[in-house]
Amino acid sequence: MRNVYVAGVGMTRFGRLEGMELRSLGAEACREAILDSGIDRSRIESAFVGTAFPGHFTRQECAVGQLVLRQLGITGIPVMRVENACASGSSALREAWISVASGLVDVALAFGVEKLSNVPTSEVMSIFSYASDYEAEGSAGIIFPGVFAMIAQAYMHEYGVRPEQLAEVSVKNHRHGFENPRAQRKLLLTVEDVQKAKMVCDPLTSMHCCPISDGAAAVVLVSESVAREVGRGQIRLAAVGLATGDYDAERPLTTFPSTRRAAEQAYRLAGVGPEDIKVAEVHDCFSVAELVHLEDLGFCERGDAAKVTSQGETTIGGRLPVNTSGGLLSKGHPVGATGIAQVVELTEQLRGHSGPRQVEGANVGLAMCMGGFMFGDGCAATVTILHR
Amino acid sequence: MRNVYVAGVGMTRFGRLEGMELRSLGAEACREAILDSGIDRSRIESAFVGTAFPGHFTRQECAVGQLVLRQLGITGIPVMRVENACASGSSALREAWISVASGLVDVALAFGVEKLSNVPTSEVMSIFSYASDYEAEGSAGIIFPGVFAMIAQAYMHEYGVRPEQLAEVSVKNHRHGFENPRAQRKLLLTVEDVQKAKMVCDPLTSMHCCPISDGAAAVVLVSESVAREVGRGQIRLAAVGLATGDYDAERPLTTFPSTRRAAEQAYRLAGVGPEDIKVAEVHDCFSVAELVHLEDLGFCERGDAAKVTSQGETTIGGRLPVNTSGGLLSKGHPVGATGIAQVVELTEQLRGHSGPRQVEGANVGLAMCMGGFMFGDGCAATVTILHR
Repeated sequence: MRNVYVAGVGMTRFGRLEGMELRSLGAEACREAILDSGIDRSRIESAFVGTAFPGHFTRQECAVGQLVLRQLGITGIPVMRVENACASGSSALREAWISVASGLVDVALAFGVEKLSNVPTSEVMSIFSYASDYEAEGSAGIIFPGVFAMIAQAYMHEYGVRPEQLAEVSVKNHRHGFENPRAQRKLLLTVEDVQKAKMVCDPLTSMHCCPISDGAAAVVLVSESVAREVGRGQIRLAAVGLATGDYDAERPLTTFPSTRRAAEQAYRLAGVGPEDIKVAEVHDCFSVAELVHLEDLGFCERGDAAKVTSQGETTIGGRLPVNTSGGLLSKGHPVGATGIAQVVELTEQLRGHSGPRQVEGANVGLAMCMGGFMFGDGCAATVTILHR
Repeated sequence: MRNVYVAGVGMTRFGRLEGMELRSLGAEACREAILDSGIDRSRIESAFVGTAFPGHFTRQECAVGQLVLRQLGITGIPVMRVENACASGSSALREAWISVASGLVDVALAFGVEKLSNVPTSEVMSIFSYASDYEAEGSAGIIFPGVFAMIAQAYMHEYGVRPEQLAEVSVKNHRHGFENPRAQRKLLLTVEDVQKAKMVCDPLTSMHCCPISDGAAAVVLVSESVAREVGRGQIRLAAVGLATGDYDAERPLTTFPSTRRAAEQAYRLAGVGPEDIKVAEVHDCFSVAELVHLEDLGFCERGDAAKVTSQGETTIGGRLPVNTSGGLLSKGHPVGATGIAQVVELTEQLRGHSGPRQVEGANVGLAMCMGGFMFGDGCAATVTILHR
């Protein structure tokens, strides 16, 4: 396995982007990433697109990557779609990483794109339930907010945590996202604002839940020789761990085996531990998810994440700033784009280009994504580690 | 890049398989491949599933691989879906191949699965058009049989070929498939039978078109050290080439740039040429497709494929037997499974286990798959080469 470097990153604004379709969103993000890399587009040897539900929202089920790249005059090269529900983007990144690390190619493009805002919210929730064990869960009416409300109830019960403490995750991430020009929900919220928002599924109000978003993000990965040639050897993509769950109905709901496994894999491959991470993007599709992931990633003891959050440790300026981009809660969650957008944020942090959101001394970053649900665990979890 | 070996293969029967759902089909093929490999299932380190339209037929859009593997008690490992329309299975195979070749894992499982027969044919055709440039083609009513009828008309016009000559492809492949217990359409046809079948899109009757199928296929890939340990070092997966088209509306319809590129890539990586291939599985979704692919793969000159077919060169016993399994026309075409099923056939041929369909002296095999369509070319073409 060869060393792999992040040569360029790009992303669109996230939000309900009227008039922006799959192909134009994808093209904007890829164009920006390629320009940022300093590499001519003719040198891209392979491309991977992460997108989860394109056919259900736009009828463009297949060929999404090919259509995006054609906009940029990139044709002929190997292109494929990678899908792993909300971890589609990070799974595509994993394949791009392995393709360069293997020696097969020197320059690979990974991007993620999703268009969701053209469909009513209730229908979006039905379509998202196609990312469960549909026969056992989705068809019985179990949808994402319900699953994470159950997890929140279990978490509060097990550790004596109050809903107001969950709300602090949302307050923090919105405060971070307020400074991010690409974020969808730019709001300065109080705990009371979060708690008084429309109830979705007790204890989760709408401000505990990420919004429905359109958007795209892209990253150009290169081998060491190309990185040196173009002067982009600063940020190394050290590892992308990927794991699935146990799907054991008897296990506690307050921990995700898939996250723990993906983290172990990524830490091992990257040769670092949780104590080395200086900035993290963590899959906060719902406020409670960030808390559980922080524990499964080894950033604090089980049951301590709410306390750690209250103490400001995960805020910019704290011990380990988490979701400096605003996270899914504020920045938005265009499903297939999310895992790549996390890497865009980390790359900018490690380059020292994050402006008011900059984390001082950020030299190792971690991104964590979770896709789908089955018996309260993710169908896929990814952990990506970047090293300056 | 390390050497990679095919340790085990498995597949279900193809057809309209009532009562067999995605997860049971996938599990049957994977179980057979794992048993065939002689490797304990606990040693599988990574899995890739190729499936193109699961959500539109079954509402199980995501987590297909995880659900299949859970049936076999395989949980926790990295799993992802790879999609490239009708080349989804072979694209999944490519990722499994690279994951072992890179040194990341020693044992990887690639499988493909599709369930299509539970939806009426007209609706199937609409859904399949989500594999075109939907905005420009699918939404205008352009569907697969229409595209390949245009290609057939252009081919006949350019080379002075008659519809009866196209029909000979179907006659041959059905004759081969008649001896394949897993084939869907076991018919001994004459050219007249093919020409008198129901017209679908002139000049293509239903017997020029592959049927709608359910099915699954799986392959276990291993590194050299594992291959030696379990005595499965006979069949090497030398390369999986993948390419896309030019999407140039001005180019001739009688050649597929995507196929040519994928072939060049695979020949180069495998260090062989078309003259070395002793048996081939070629994407005959429609009779004319086999002819064009034979030329683009370098097996004969442009315009000569109909003649070569008439002369029996591509029949079992001929110079280069093509689609000994029956091909898509007779064996069937459960989209995501097709690219993997081609490799099942080649592996059995290279092992000398193909019974009445055995090709004497088969030591190098080639499989070619095409996915989607855009301006009369494939959105993706793959060429896989196996070496004994």
